[in-house]
Amino acid sequence: MSGKLVEIDAAFVEKTVVELASFGAVGETGVSRTVYSPEWVGATDYYANACAEAGLEAYRDAVGNVWGKLPGSTAEKSIASGSHIDSQTPGGRYDGALGAVAALIAVKALKEQFGIPKRTIEAVAFCEEESSRFPNANYWGSRAITGRIRPEDPDRVIAFSGETIGQAMRDVGLDPARIPEAQRNDIDSFVELHIEQGPILEQAGLPVAVVDAITGIRQYRGEIRGVQNHAGAFPMDIRHDPLAGFTEIASGLIDTAHRVGRPAVTTVGRVLVEPNFPGIIPAKVEFSIDARHPNPQARRRLYDAHEGLMQEVARRRGLDIRWDVMLDHEPSQSDPAIVSMLQRVATEQGVPFLTMPSGAGHDSQQMAAIAKVAMIFVRSKDGRSHTPDEFSSIEDIVAGIRVLAAGLHALAY
Amino acid sequence: MSGKLVEIDAAFVEKTVVELASFGAVGETGVSRTVYSPEWVGATDYYANACAEAGLEAYRDAVGNVWGKLPGSTAEKSIASGSHIDSQTPGGRYDGALGAVAALIAVKALKEQFGIPKRTIEAVAFCEEESSRFPNANYWGSRAITGRIRPEDPDRVIAFSGETIGQAMRDVGLDPARIPEAQRNDIDSFVELHIEQGPILEQAGLPVAVVDAITGIRQYRGEIRGVQNHAGAFPMDIRHDPLAGFTEIASGLIDTAHRVGRPAVTTVGRVLVEPNFPGIIPAKVEFSIDARHPNPQARRRLYDAHEGLMQEVARRRGLDIRWDVMLDHEPSQSDPAIVSMLQRVATEQGVPFLTMPSGAGHDSQQMAAIAKVAMIFVRSKDGRSHTPDEFSSIEDIVAGIRVLAAGLHALAY
Repeated sequence: MSGKLVEIDAAFVEKTVVELASFGAVGETGVSRTVYSPEWVGATDYYANACAEAGLEAYRDAVGNVWGKLPGSTAEKSIASGSHIDSQTPGGRYDGALGAVAALIAVKALKEQFGIPKRTIEAVAFCEEESSRFPNANYWGSRAITGRIRPEDPDRVIAFSGETIGQAMRDVGLDPARIPEAQRNDIDSFVELHIEQGPILEQAGLPVAVVDAITGIRQYRGEIRGVQNHAGAFPMDIRHDPLAGFTEIASGLIDTAHRVGRPAVTTVGRVLVEPNFPGIIPAKVEFSIDARHPNPQARRRLYDAHEGLMQEVARRRGLDIRWDVMLDHEPSQSDPAIVSMLQRVATEQGVPFLTMPSGAGHDSQQMAAIAKVAMIFVRSKDGRSHTPDEFSSIEDIVAGIRVLAAGLHALAY
Repeated sequence: MSGKLVEIDAAFVEKTVVELASFGAVGETGVSRTVYSPEWVGATDYYANACAEAGLEAYRDAVGNVWGKLPGSTAEKSIASGSHIDSQTPGGRYDGALGAVAALIAVKALKEQFGIPKRTIEAVAFCEEESSRFPNANYWGSRAITGRIRPEDPDRVIAFSGETIGQAMRDVGLDPARIPEAQRNDIDSFVELHIEQGPILEQAGLPVAVVDAITGIRQYRGEIRGVQNHAGAFPMDIRHDPLAGFTEIASGLIDTAHRVGRPAVTTVGRVLVEPNFPGIIPAKVEFSIDARHPNPQARRRLYDAHEGLMQEVARRRGLDIRWDVMLDHEPSQSDPAIVSMLQRVATEQGVPFLTMPSGAGHDSQQMAAIAKVAMIFVRSKDGRSHTPDEFSSIEDIVAGIRVLAAGLHALAY
């Protein structure tokens, strides 16, 4: 279809985004929809119905991902697109959900405008990505598709409120013993559309990006212990104040990422002080570090610098420090041929774009274990995400879906 | 009695300390005894009984302070000693309670060994000093004695668990409307014995200190607001990360107090981050600053430096900062004549001592509004306080009580 524009119905896009957001709605624009909750059941039923109405073969797999399949004329491996249908608590309407909607609408448009493809095309709504109910779910939906959920995981992945993910599955009629049935070995390529969740497109004045890599992410849980004492009676020069050590470390880690420059990022987002009273030198500070870089060597140097600083400060100040790595995802590179193809079709569709790495983790990095992958980003207003204020314009979304549809066409027809 | 040793019964001291610690006991050595609690009622009854058994006129005043009076032969203003009977939750056996016990035992010893004084001598157990039930009680017991509790305070001082201090008073049979009756205008001098709560005496190898000033204390509640964003998708160079600003500020404040040197101290003891998730750049950091110096000019310079740093960092980083002063006590100087006298009698009693300011706040700084004041410190093991691990040896305590008794003798006989 080189040169031919894919037509996308903006009103239908808006209607679908708004209707999907009604499941777990919080206020005007917020959504709180954790995996296997009643709101989630509603949203997945809605998605399956929308797939069926679009003429796709809709089904829910063994872990709760919803698929809408447009069968191809050959037995070749299929082309898939989608994203997750769960949300932060609350998040917005677009994070994840937009990628599921975009896939559905792109496949529907291709079916209507180009007929039966050679390769089967599939739209998918992954059941879980946010870890907003189960902190260690670790891409539960896409991980099941890659066959990397271990038999013990359903009993070991525990919710913030204490229940296991296995129990939560049974509560919505899914049998955790059948998770292996969700595994797929017949997907050739996977293209995920997602909101950027950052300000780079907005600052560049562009609606869309082609994503050439997903950053490597490491999260540490650190703990510094000192000696609790009275804030007035203990001279500065003989204190072992873990808050003094923590603030020097956190300030230094952040400065390090600044000096390394884009795309390195380091965030300290969580801090717990004990006993946390104004008049008491603390006994303990617990903290998180989230450090990311898409380049494997630069990532290693960033982590080495962070760990070296923690050791040095703690030693100099006479504090006990320890840390655990809670999360460690290698960078994931997009397939170069798909990246080139998406750049080409974006140009053909008249959609201005830039090429960038993703600083957030995505289901695509899981799917990369079984398929060639790439992503498309849509501009986020003010770079906001994980909040009800998250917003992307319908114009930008339609531009993104047109690139997605043209890309799926290039891969499947 | 110049040169004559005051005899103090070490076994009786130990018995009294241990028995008083049974009210609100936590584990082997801890005490949790907030004002107007059942444990507090038990402790004040015990103290009143002990005063009566020592031959003192015991009574509870309108706010719940317990007094034990040894009437003098003249109508001159009286000499008083004591400290608070409430505790941290949990604290140890010695903070406050030891000063009440020391006063009782000193007056008992003087009565037994020197008979009727010229001036009335009074031992007192103040009802409240720790703010451990009512965060804004602000020296409730000694403040009532100075007449500085306002009529609206009983309804406005609110517990951590929500009740007013007026209601708590009524629950133990005290009428808040009668608080003004606790006011005293007939106290000439007040000498408070207290544990040091710091390591200075231990490091000096001395049992006792004469306290020549109580440090000035200011506590701030600060709040820094930035822009909440995704930890991965937002480049370092355009973040408004309140945690980055907070850690630079807190680290800088602590460094400032270090550079000023003893006796300046600055502590950041309380930190609350919102929303406090590893993968999210925070929206807000709330924090406390506790900064102290006993010299009025040096104190002013310390606060100016702290406030200047907060302004500078917030402006440079594009963060909103605000702070409230939650507590602001001017330094309180001990009466120079009483300090000299205590130094002299300590030497006469053969008790080695040093002279130092108090880095903690004490009832004495309230009592300074109506009487000449000074304090005596007793060595604290490892400088620990506000913990069940708090400990002072009976030998050190007896040395402190001998200085106290000799001081009261010098003032009253």
